[in-house]
Formats: sequence, C-alpha cells, structure tokens
Amino acid sequence: MSVRLAGRVAQPAPVAGAAPTLLGIDFGGTKMAVGVADGEGRLLACERVPTYAEQGAQQALDRALDLAAKLVGEVGGPIAAAGIASPGVVRPDGIDLAPNVPGWDRLRLADAVRDRFGVPAVAVDNDLNAAALAELRFGALRDADPGLVVGLGTGVAAALTVRGSVLAGHHGAAGEIGYAVAGGPWPGTMLELDFSGRALDRLADELGVPGTAAGLAAAAERPGPARDALTARVDELARHLITCCLLLDPQRVVLVGGVAGSELIRGLLVERLAAVLPYRPDVVLSGFADDAALLGAVVLAREAVPAPR
Amino acid sequence: MSVRLAGRVAQPAPVAGAAPTLLGIDFGGTKMAVGVADGEGRLLACERVPTYAEQGAQQALDRALDLAAKLVGEVGGPIAAAGIASPGVVRPDGIDLAPNVPGWDRLRLADAVRDRFGVPAVAVDNDLNAAALAELRFGALRDADPGLVVGLGTGVAAALTVRGSVLAGHHGAAGEIGYAVAGGPWPGTMLELDFSGRALDRLADELGVPGTAAGLAAAAERPGPARDALTARVDELARHLITCCLLLDPQRVVLVGGVAGSELIRGLLVERLAAVLPYRPDVVLSGFADDAALLGAVVLAREAVPAPR
Repeated sequence: MSVRLAGRVAQPAPVAGAAPTLLGIDFGGTKMAVGVADGEGRLLACERVPTYAEQGAQQALDRALDLAAKLVGEVGGPIAAAGIASPGVVRPDGIDLAPNVPGWDRLRLADAVRDRFGVPAVAVDNDLNAAALAELRFGALRDADPGLVVGLGTGVAAALTVRGSVLAGHHGAAGEIGYAVAGGPWPGTMLELDFSGRALDRLADELGVPGTAAGLAAAAERPGPARDALTARVDELARHLITCCLLLDPQRVVLVGGVAGSELIRGLLVERLAAVLPYRPDVVLSGFADDAALLGAVVLAREAVPAPR
Repeated sequence: MSVRLAGRVAQPAPVAGAAPTLLGIDFGGTKMAVGVADGEGRLLACERVPTYAEQGAQQALDRALDLAAKLVGEVGGPIAAAGIASPGVVRPDGIDLAPNVPGWDRLRLADAVRDRFGVPAVAVDNDLNAAALAELRFGALRDADPGLVVGLGTGVAAALTVRGSVLAGHHGAAGEIGYAVAGGPWPGTMLELDFSGRALDRLADELGVPGTAAGLAAAAERPGPARDALTARVDELARHLITCCLLLDPQRVVLVGGVAGSELIRGLLVERLAAVLPYRPDVVLSGFADDAALLGAVVLAREAVPAPR
C-alpha cells in the first residue's frame, strides 16, 4: 500500500475492506483536520476545513464527521479505533475550558464518533496533549525528558511530557496556562486575552495594521509602534513560560500553532528565556507544522485499539 | 527501642553497635538540622543549629558535621547511609544556584560526609526535593498526584511529585521558581528578591515594623501600609504559583518553610489561587513544621542503603 506522511493518497487506490485503519480528528478554534491512517499511524489521507466557530459547535462537529465519512469511504477498510483532539478539558459528558467555539462545552465528542462510525474504541484528549503525544512518539520529544509543548494558536496552552507519557494533571487540566494572570496590578488579565492569535488580531486592528496577527508580526520586523506593542505582549508570555521552565526544567520546549510560525515572535521569546533562565532548554518549532494535534489524534487512536484476544 | 518522631531520645539509652542507623542533614540558609534515624527512617535524635550564613560555607559545614558526629555517637550503631538536603542544584563537584550562603557553591557535600563518617552510601538532593520526598512517602502527598511543594523560607522554591517520585528536571533544577520574573516592566526583578524571608525582613525594615518578616505579618493583620505592602508581594507570588498550578494541575499544594507559617500570608495566597484557577488544588501547610527537608534527607538515606547481597 502506498503511504505518505501527509496529504491525500492518489495511487494505487486502497482496497476496500483491507487492513484496519485509524481515524483521527483534530478540532481547533479556527480549523479542523481529519485524517485516516494505517495501523501504524501513517496518514493515508487528510483534509482540513474551517471551523466557523462563530456559527457554533454543532455545525462544526457535523461537518467534521461528514468529512471523516468521506475520507474513510475513500480509503476503505474498517476503522479499528478513532482518536479525537479537542481544545479544553475533555470529560465524558462534555468539555470544560473551551470558550473559543460557542456550545463546544456541551458536545459529547466520543459518543458522536462512536455513533456515526460504529467504532467502540474512541479516545479523546486535549489538543495540546495530543500534540505532545505525537512529539513524544515520533517528533521533537522522542529523546527529551521532561518536555514542554507550548501551543500558540487560536488559544494559548501547554502540555508536559514526563518519562514517556503526557501528564494529564489531577483534573485532566494540566497545561491550561492560557488562564494565567497577565499584566498590570492584581488581578490583571488572562494571558490568553493578551497573547492568542485572536488577541494579536485585535491588536493589529487597533494599530491599523492590515493582515491581522501575521500582518502585525510583519509590521513588527522594523522598529515602531507595532514592534513595541508586540514586544510588550511577548514580554508577558515570556514571563509565564519562564516560570513554567523553572518549574519543570525541561530538556526541550516545542512550539506549535499558527502564532509560533512567526520567526520574529520565536526569536523574541527565545531571547527572553535565555536572558533569565539559569538552565536553558532547547526551544524548537514543531516539525509537524499544523498537523501535530492531528497526528496526536491518530496516536490516540492507535493506542486505543483493543488488544487482540 | 524507644522511638520518637522528633526530638531527642531520652530512655532507654540505645545500645552502641546495635542496628544500623541512617544519618540525615538538612542545610538551610538560616538553620541546619541533623537527625539520626532507625532503619525505617524514624528519628531517634535530632538537633538544629543556626547556619550563620554570613560567616561562609565551610564553618557551617564543619559545625553540621561535628553535630552529626555527636548525635551518631549518642545513638550508637553503624551508619548504613547518609542523606543530605541542600539549597540549590547539587552536582557531584559543587552546588549551583545557592546564593544565600557565600562559598556554598564550591562544597562537595557528599564527599565531606563520606570522608568524615566512612559511609559510602551518601545521597544528596535539593532541600525542596527532599521535603517533597518526605511528603510523598509519609506526608501530605502520600495520596495526591501530581503534587506541588512550595517552599517559602530563606529562599523561594518548589518541587513537583509525579506518579510516586520527585521530578528532578533535565539539569536537576526543576522547581527553581525563585528565579521567576516578578514585577514591573521587563525584565522586572527576581521573585526571590521580592518574596523570600529575607526580602520580607527588608520590607519590614523599610516600613519601620519591628520583628522582621514575622513582625510584618503581624502588623499586616490590620489595614495599613504593612498590609498593603505585604499584599502586593503576595499578589506577585500568587501570579507565579497560579501559572505553576495551571501547568501541573496538582491535586494538592503543600506549603513549607518559615514564611508559610503565617496564617495571613497563607490566607491571602489561597484566596488568590481560588479566584483565578478553574480547578482548585487542596492547599495545605506541611505537617512536618520545620522538619520536612530533614525527614526527606533521612528518606534519601533510607533509599540509598545498598541492597543486601
């Protein structure tokens, strides 16, 4: 069978009813990705669609499941297990701390996938935890311990890897640093309101910079108000990441998400960490581009496949 | 044999040359504690002396070893292993990040104890890590995972427990949150300079409050400048502890150290954590009073005893 690490498989056409496949879905605040992989977790087909968060959770879930059905149909083969990555803290009957898509908190993601595809083995985890799992199994954290994954995308969050597994935390909420207290006198604001993709979009808008967060990063390449404003935001993010690094003493920090794609922002961040930390971790950009959480969802599926009797 | 959990044993006098004992030493920036324990880690004798940090490291080490020799002589029995708790990041040939005692960085603690007592099995760890080990084995973290220990004493530091062990970090420096970036515009100050026992002593002095940090906490019981100044310091500490709790999602947070003894400071801290954290850990004061790191040193010794051949 022809296997590619990403993108759609063209030739040869997979044989329907062949080896069992894995389904992975990554729900994000801006985009959703669906992938079908072989039993080893190698993507056979994947596709990405917008979330349209402002139109609510149900339509996003419905479109993601439709897309999954289409890809599963194309690849063929029974689904052995499914893995789902979602923002927030996933409980069996809903999702906490996922404010970016209205109604997301009331979704029962595992049930929805189970019902639609008749597959009993469905694993759900937080999207950054899924990304960290992918980094741990075949990415930048394969050979690093402890590891810290920092997601700078629609939201701000992190995930920890310790001795070969992702740390869930007592309530399954480890890594939710978007709720950190930023700026000014107590109680200040929430870090995520200061330094998410959306916060930077708003900042770009206030400064009259075209092109939202990406435009802001471009305008900040040269000295001026955009640089000053962005630097102040990076200062605040750095402050919290420094505390995280001091607490964990990670060997490697992996940055994921759209905002982390800005070389300027990464550079400012690394400079600040290096200036303060007595022991400096490697800081690297994820090698998975936008696919870290999707690949993690596939690993979740692989690790959820029932053992043969 | 008569066994007490703390303090000196009076009667009956232990038989010299009896069961092997464990030696524990906790070096602190203000006080040093030495304990001799039975093979199970129960203290048979312990004593505490001032560090006189300003007089340098060597005299402190010499006096601690003299005290240890005295207690070992009184209890009798061969030493099976020794455990040492020290501020900073302990390497075989020195100690990093221990600025509170001049010259401490050049000490080879394990060698000094090995030479003096002829005991090959000597384990050394950071004092907060030792305290966390004691909490994990027979304290507040026995039944909690993950756990966070926060030391508010001469310095400010933390330790993490994950799945039954203390997390060392890649450089052995996990928990060194005293280096966090506090206050004002970037790069601000170091958290430890804002919120250690010494920092609060200085603050008390500036405010003209008698009795150093303890006096400050007493004066802050009623509204006024002492309350305002202390509250601002707690705000900054809380900001960083909130980030730590968000990252780790601990089931329980254990406060240790002299400054943590202030009910007012604990109350202000708990209030701030509760106001911001979406999932609240238990926050408790260590049940070991000043002995957490000493008990941890004894556990280090117990776990360093060579397995019988």
